[in-house]
Amino acid sequence: MNAPEDDPLLGQRVMGADLRDAWAVLDPEARVEGFRYLTSAEAEEFFLELNAHDRALIVLALPPVEQRWWLRALPPDDVADLIQEAPEETRGMLISLLDESTRRDITVLLAYSEDEAGGLMNPRYARLRSSMSVDEAIGYLRRQTRERVENIYYAYVLDEQQKLVGVVSFRQLMMARGDARVREVMVTELVTVQDEMDQEAVARIFAQHDLMCVPVVDPQGRMKGIVTADDIVDVVREEATEDIQKIGGSEALDAPYLQVGLLEMLKKRAGWLIVLFIGGTFTVSAIGHFQGKIASVGYLETFIAMIISCGGNSGSQASTLVIRAMALGEVRLRDWWRVFLRECAAGLSLGAILGTLGLLRIVVWHHLFTDEAGAPMYGDQYLLVGITVALAVIGVATWGTLVGALLPFGLRRLGLDPASASAPLVATLSDVTGIMIFFSIALAVLSGTVF
Amino acid sequence: MNAPEDDPLLGQRVMGADLRDAWAVLDPEARVEGFRYLTSAEAEEFFLELNAHDRALIVLALPPVEQRWWLRALPPDDVADLIQEAPEETRGMLISLLDESTRRDITVLLAYSEDEAGGLMNPRYARLRSSMSVDEAIGYLRRQTRERVENIYYAYVLDEQQKLVGVVSFRQLMMARGDARVREVMVTELVTVQDEMDQEAVARIFAQHDLMCVPVVDPQGRMKGIVTADDIVDVVREEATEDIQKIGGSEALDAPYLQVGLLEMLKKRAGWLIVLFIGGTFTVSAIGHFQGKIASVGYLETFIAMIISCGGNSGSQASTLVIRAMALGEVRLRDWWRVFLRECAAGLSLGAILGTLGLLRIVVWHHLFTDEAGAPMYGDQYLLVGITVALAVIGVATWGTLVGALLPFGLRRLGLDPASASAPLVATLSDVTGIMIFFSIALAVLSGTVF
Repeated sequence: MNAPEDDPLLGQRVMGADLRDAWAVLDPEARVEGFRYLTSAEAEEFFLELNAHDRALIVLALPPVEQRWWLRALPPDDVADLIQEAPEETRGMLISLLDESTRRDITVLLAYSEDEAGGLMNPRYARLRSSMSVDEAIGYLRRQTRERVENIYYAYVLDEQQKLVGVVSFRQLMMARGDARVREVMVTELVTVQDEMDQEAVARIFAQHDLMCVPVVDPQGRMKGIVTADDIVDVVREEATEDIQKIGGSEALDAPYLQVGLLEMLKKRAGWLIVLFIGGTFTVSAIGHFQGKIASVGYLETFIAMIISCGGNSGSQASTLVIRAMALGEVRLRDWWRVFLRECAAGLSLGAILGTLGLLRIVVWHHLFTDEAGAPMYGDQYLLVGITVALAVIGVATWGTLVGALLPFGLRRLGLDPASASAPLVATLSDVTGIMIFFSIALAVLSGTVF
Repeated sequence: MNAPEDDPLLGQRVMGADLRDAWAVLDPEARVEGFRYLTSAEAEEFFLELNAHDRALIVLALPPVEQRWWLRALPPDDVADLIQEAPEETRGMLISLLDESTRRDITVLLAYSEDEAGGLMNPRYARLRSSMSVDEAIGYLRRQTRERVENIYYAYVLDEQQKLVGVVSFRQLMMARGDARVREVMVTELVTVQDEMDQEAVARIFAQHDLMCVPVVDPQGRMKGIVTADDIVDVVREEATEDIQKIGGSEALDAPYLQVGLLEMLKKRAGWLIVLFIGGTFTVSAIGHFQGKIASVGYLETFIAMIISCGGNSGSQASTLVIRAMALGEVRLRDWWRVFLRECAAGLSLGAILGTLGLLRIVVWHHLFTDEAGAPMYGDQYLLVGITVALAVIGVATWGTLVGALLPFGLRRLGLDPASASAPLVATLSDVTGIMIFFSIALAVLSGTVF
């Protein structure tokens, strides 16, 4: 191995900050190499900042003695995440490096899926009995601190069956008389989460109650661990990232943008684009179907793009608003009728504003411009053309808004992710119908006069 | 006032849970009325769950004695938020209800904007001097607890100028010898945030370091307060909500979807739709410009909608991926060239896949279907038409992808929010150029054969 001053990556001694900056562009080997140049203090700080995937990469590249060291530097929930990110065949080896009590904790954690409360929780928490005195409790917590219980700020009071009966904050213990019993000080009205609750629901509970920490219980009420707010910050960021990526019409990337390989990136993006493209080909048939009938008013076709994009835009707005409101728990499945009514009103109003603009555009152009033959633009029937366009815009905007607002409900009803009602999907769905609405209105309005 | 059993809203005694369910549909008066039916224990629990806006609504509707009571139930940062949500003319009155020390705290907080670290922080935190012994420190923290310092789990060590010199967790104090000095136990390598740092940057620091709590300092290094992870959970949710709403092409709603009045909703949504609509009218001119030249191949126009929606979809994908990567700090302004290269490759590859599908569509239709005159669809030049469409799809997809990927960089460079590069904006921008690309390619490919 080269001496630090010959470092091939950075030309100088690697500092944590340099490595952090370069991390995204380094390939796995260079990452491991860079990491090994850090001083041990820097390496520890750096390691603790990495995500589970990168931690697994580093640990697997180190000799066994160091592997054991790094695994022991992490709390059990982070060890479990690291092991879940490691290749299947290395997991047994990694688990064998742990001490007996951590191994037990990890086995419990690995039984849960990563996105459940049980997969997020830390199985080491401070426990008390309700019959202890406050002074005994403080001393007992002090001992638990030495046994690697990290969070002693809330202590959970369990009965003989490990059922959670109360919680007491360290602050409350400090303020209480030393000879009071824990049962007199503890709070018994508890916010808890079920071990199999989805992490998004756990995050909503944190936000609603402004919690720092929540106990996780199994269906029998037995305490399994605690979830802390720092884990929830990560959950909220990840869930929002997934939703935003889906709203944009790709699959969730599951890794930082610059770290996803091109092939992987194409896989995540091509699927939806292909589906949408096939959906888009129906517009070809739709336009073809009407083309013969309106050929005599050729300039009608020039409005196609404007009118359908109007439906797509209205729909994208409505779907993203509804998707986010659902994710935040502001709108539930049973609210669909209220959302429908609101969006009818919104779609019609927005359509009316845009339709008026469309009508104005045609009137103004008629008076300002001439067509290729020198006649005023849009001919004598320019008002009828304007009314056709205005009505089409109202119809398309309302339709797009309703499709966008109701599609997330439909997806959730089917057990799918509402965020899949992406802006492009809503736009594509409203394209075909937009064309039909436009040309149908055109045929109806103009039939007596032009044809 | 009616007795609870005659409650006009719910027909029975109001419970916190009922009120919580009905909250979104109630008008302000009904909310206040419902709140006043709660038992005091329920009311307290309920009040603490409300956002600042609803808390202000409730407090302002109560008699002064109760106002004072509710304001004192909140920590100072929440009181400051409530006051910021109250109408200008009521703020002085609300501040006058506070005790002297809270009033001082609030005045500091109100000097910061809501979305800065200073506006998020709690100015009450546990302080120590470095010369204290561990036992003295524990006793001192115990006293501070009684003075309404809520969070004693981290204690901050300040020098005479109020500058932050170290931090010690309560756990570390508990584990240390009682006669050790605080300076021997404290950690001096600190993660801090500046008081004027944007809340999104604060959230990134929490996520990167997995923090429960961070100290806020002014530019001179003087400690001003602490921000805790529960506040950051709210920040991350709010920021993601704003980004998602902007990505969908509306302004941020700033309130739960069902609680925004229709007029307010229209204001937030109409602005962008009007801008996009006006942008969309350029497609009318673009199509009009080319119409005369390609009229002889009428069926080319049937592909317009498919081709431009292809550009819009590719662009929406790229822009949302880049916007989110920027918000997470994964991609910085100086990475624009790397993003450009990646997206060139992605756009060309995705375009090639879709272009091939487009070509196949035309070949298959030519062999399966006939036009109105009974001849094979797309005539003898169907292969040339297919190649035109395929090339146009490649061009439009690449162009849309690049516009989508680079627009967020442009907006950030101008000091604007990258999330304003909404899916509809990107789609509209790529619509006009998509039409030009399509028809230019059509003219070039078909000029020798059809025209």
